Amino acid sequence: MVIRTLEELARFDAEKMQKIPVFNSPYLFYDLYTLLPGQMQKVHAHEGSDKIYLVLAGEVRVQVGEEQATLTSGQATRAPAGEPHGVWNAGEKPAVLLVVMAPRPS
Amino acid sequence: MVIRTLEELARFDAEKMQKIPVFNSPYLFYDLYTLLPGQMQKVHAHEGSDKIYLVLAGEVRVQVGEEQATLTSGQATRAPAGEPHGVWNAGEKPAVLLVVMAPRPS
Repeated sequence: MVIRTLEELARFDAEKMQKIPVFNSPYLFYDLYTLLPGQMQKVHAHEGSDKIYLVLAGEVRVQVGEEQATLTSGQATRAPAGEPHGVWNAGEKPAVLLVVMAPRPS
Repeated sequence: MVIRTLEELARFDAEKMQKIPVFNSPYLFYDLYTLLPGQMQKVHAHEGSDKIYLVLAGEVRVQVGEEQATLTSGQATRAPAGEPHGVWNAGEKPAVLLVVMAPRPS
């Protein structure tokens, strides 16, 4: 049984947001995104896959469609398939997101 | 944008473990499981779907295949498609799991 301790996996890079795969599954992505203040993932969309963001640490500004909101630790939102979405760290502390996407794009 | 605060969704039932859907997606289950001490989900298996457990609160004993382990807050494990898996609260406090499964069984 592979056990992952999320806090131990989180690492930050001054260069850009980091995507850290937690598990290797043929069916979904299950990743940590780590963002230093000011770092972001630009708005983009996936046809046919849902993405769910859960904030594990810090504050993350999320855009889904035309809407924006600031999520803090323990808050989650869903970007339905085809909806533009993006995230950025508008806070003053490092931020960690748990990001699940299914199905895994081919 | 639908925002869910996981702590506000968690509710417990003395009768049995609760499954609380967080988002409604055609592609995956994204649920909270809440377990009072002694409560469990029996070992079972899904052909063709992976399940990932993340402990959000408490201590949860997890079985995947023939292996067992105790996971605490911030620890996750994966039950690959076809592998028997189950969970129970062997601790003394209420436990909360974030459970993701994809694809959603038909």
